[in-house]
Amino acid sequence: MTQPVPEKAVPNGLPPPPFFLPYPDRPELITENLMKLVELTPDPRHRFLVRTLITHLHQFINETSLTTDEWMTAIQYLTRVGQTCTPLRQETILLSDVLGVSALVDAINNPPISGGTESSVLGPFFTEDAPDVSLGDSIASEGKGEYMYVEGRVLGTDGSPVPDATIETWETDAHGFYDTQYADRGKPDCRGRLRTDKDGRFGYRAVVPVAYPIPGDGPVGDLLLKLGRHNMRPNHLHLMIEAPGYNKLTTALYPEGDDYLSSDAVFGVKKSLVVTLADVHDDAEARKRGFPQGGSFKLLQFDIILVPDDESQLAREQFAKERREKAGIKRDL
Amino acid sequence: MTQPVPEKAVPNGLPPPPFFLPYPDRPELITENLMKLVELTPDPRHRFLVRTLITHLHQFINETSLTTDEWMTAIQYLTRVGQTCTPLRQETILLSDVLGVSALVDAINNPPISGGTESSVLGPFFTEDAPDVSLGDSIASEGKGEYMYVEGRVLGTDGSPVPDATIETWETDAHGFYDTQYADRGKPDCRGRLRTDKDGRFGYRAVVPVAYPIPGDGPVGDLLLKLGRHNMRPNHLHLMIEAPGYNKLTTALYPEGDDYLSSDAVFGVKKSLVVTLADVHDDAEARKRGFPQGGSFKLLQFDIILVPDDESQLAREQFAKERREKAGIKRDL
Repeated sequence: MTQPVPEKAVPNGLPPPPFFLPYPDRPELITENLMKLVELTPDPRHRFLVRTLITHLHQFINETSLTTDEWMTAIQYLTRVGQTCTPLRQETILLSDVLGVSALVDAINNPPISGGTESSVLGPFFTEDAPDVSLGDSIASEGKGEYMYVEGRVLGTDGSPVPDATIETWETDAHGFYDTQYADRGKPDCRGRLRTDKDGRFGYRAVVPVAYPIPGDGPVGDLLLKLGRHNMRPNHLHLMIEAPGYNKLTTALYPEGDDYLSSDAVFGVKKSLVVTLADVHDDAEARKRGFPQGGSFKLLQFDIILVPDDESQLAREQFAKERREKAGIKRDL
Repeated sequence: MTQPVPEKAVPNGLPPPPFFLPYPDRPELITENLMKLVELTPDPRHRFLVRTLITHLHQFINETSLTTDEWMTAIQYLTRVGQTCTPLRQETILLSDVLGVSALVDAINNPPISGGTESSVLGPFFTEDAPDVSLGDSIASEGKGEYMYVEGRVLGTDGSPVPDATIETWETDAHGFYDTQYADRGKPDCRGRLRTDKDGRFGYRAVVPVAYPIPGDGPVGDLLLKLGRHNMRPNHLHLMIEAPGYNKLTTALYPEGDDYLSSDAVFGVKKSLVVTLADVHDDAEARKRGFPQGGSFKLLQFDIILVPDDESQLAREQFAKERREKAGIKRDL
C-alpha cells in the first residue's frame, strides 16, 4: 500500500443471526428472512411496530407489483421531502397531513371525551420561538390583517378554572402566510405564548386568519396536483394548551362560512371546532381593546376545556383497546 | 396596511371536490374522506398506487395505535434520512435496502429467466461519474487492495455474444469503503465504465472487495442497532450491464466463503451470484496482466447472460399477473 491507510469502516458489533437464513432466491424469502430478523429486536414495542410496518410495506409492493422506476421515483420523492425541510419548514409533516396520517394519529390518540375540547392537527408551522404576550396584548404586528380579539377561559372538565395554563397560538396573516414563509422573517409574528390568569382567563389581540393554500412549491404541492386535489385549508387559529395535571391539547378553531371547511386539505376540521366570529362595530370598544386604528373588530369567544391526565389516559387506552379488538389485533403492545 | 403587500399565497387552482364530505369527527371518516378524494386522481395507475398506499398506511396506524410521540419520531426520522442524502450519499436507498424493499422490488421486476444472469440490488453507492476503462485497464488506483482480474463475456440467452455492451462496475477498496465515503474524494476510484469487444469480451483489473459495514453514522445505522441487526454486507463486485435490445441488468457477484453471505444486511445475495475466485500465483502472469507489483492475483471469471427485452417483458408481466392472482388483486393496473 503506497497511500496512508484510513480507518477501516466500523461494524456495529452485532453478530450474524443465530439461525439459518436461506438465500432469498424467491421474493417470498426476502420477506420471510426479514421477519425472522425482526424477532431479534430487543424492545417489544419496536418489534411490534417494525413487524407491522414491514408487513404492510411488502404487501404494498406485492399488491401493486411496484416497478423499479416507480420505486426510484418514490426514493427520490422521499429524499426531496426531507431535503425541503429547514428549521422553519417541515415538509414531512405536510406530507403526513395531506395523506390523512396526522389527522388519524391525532384522532386515535385524542378520543373525544365528553365535555373536553376536541383536538386538531398540529400542522407544519408551529415554532418554538413565539414571544410571551400579556393579557390584552397583540400577537400580530400592526397591518397584518383585519382586527380580531380572542378571549375565553381555560377550564377543567369539572368546570373549575385552570390558572397559569400555557397557551401557544399561531395563525396566518391576511395574505395567507405564516411568518416563517417570508424569506426575510426577522422575528416571530402572528404567534405568541400566553398564560391564563388566576381565573383561567385569557385574551389577546390577533388578526382574522384567512383560508390559504399549503405550500405548493415543494414535493407535497406536486403530489396534490398529481392527485387532482386542491391545496387549501379553511381559515383557522392554532392553539396548543398545557397545564400541569391536564392532557396537553393541540387544537385549532375554524371560523364558520369558509368554502373549504368540509374539504380541508389536511383533514383538520371537526364540527365542534367550528366557531362564530362576532362583528363588533364600536370604535370606542376597539380602541379600549387596544386596536390602534379603532373602527371595528371581530370577536372570538371560546372556552377551552382540558381533560385531566388520568381521565385522558384511561380514555385513550380504552379507545385503543376497542380499535385493536375491531382490527383483530391480538397483542397488547 | 402600512407595510408593502407581498404576493398572496397561490392556490393550485383545483376546485373543492364535487361531492359531500362529512366533518371527520371519527377516525374512520378521515380514511373514508381520503379514499373518496383519491378517486379524483386523473391517472389510473397513480390512483391505484395511492389507494393501496393509503390503505396500508392507515391500517398500520390503526393496528399499532401509533402514539403521537411515535408519529413525531417517525417524522423526524424520515426528515433526517432525506437530509443525510448528498450528491454522493443516498440514505433513502439504504433505508429501502435494510427493510428488504429494494430486494423485493428487484425480485418482482426481474423474475429469474432460464439461462439469464440473476439481478441483485443497486445499493446506494452507484455514481454517474465512473471513468471509461479499456480492455485490461484498472478501475482501481494502485494500493487500493489485493489484485483481482475480472474477465468474461456478455452473451444473450441464445449464446450469441453481445458486442459493445456497456458495463458499469464499482466496488469497495480493501478498507471496506467506496470512494464516495472519503471526505477528500478528488476523483472516482474503484469504479469504471467498460464496453465489450466484438466478441462480447470484457476484462479489467480491480481489487478484491471486502465485507464491509453499510454506513453506521446515519439514521439507517441507528435503526439497525435498534433492531439488533448487524450492518455487514458480504464482499461483492457491482455490475450494471446495458445493451440495445436486452433488458438492463443490475447485479453483483459475491465471492464464496464470506461470513455474511447468508445474512447480508440488504438481502442482495442469490445462490447463482456466488462465485469462486481463483488464486493465480504467477509473477509473470500478474505482470503480463498489468499489475505493477507483480506477485499473485485473484482471477474472477464470469459470463454475463442478458435476456432480450421482449422475453424479459413477457416474463415480468406473467410473473406480476401470477403474483396479483395469488394476492387476490383484481385490477390489472
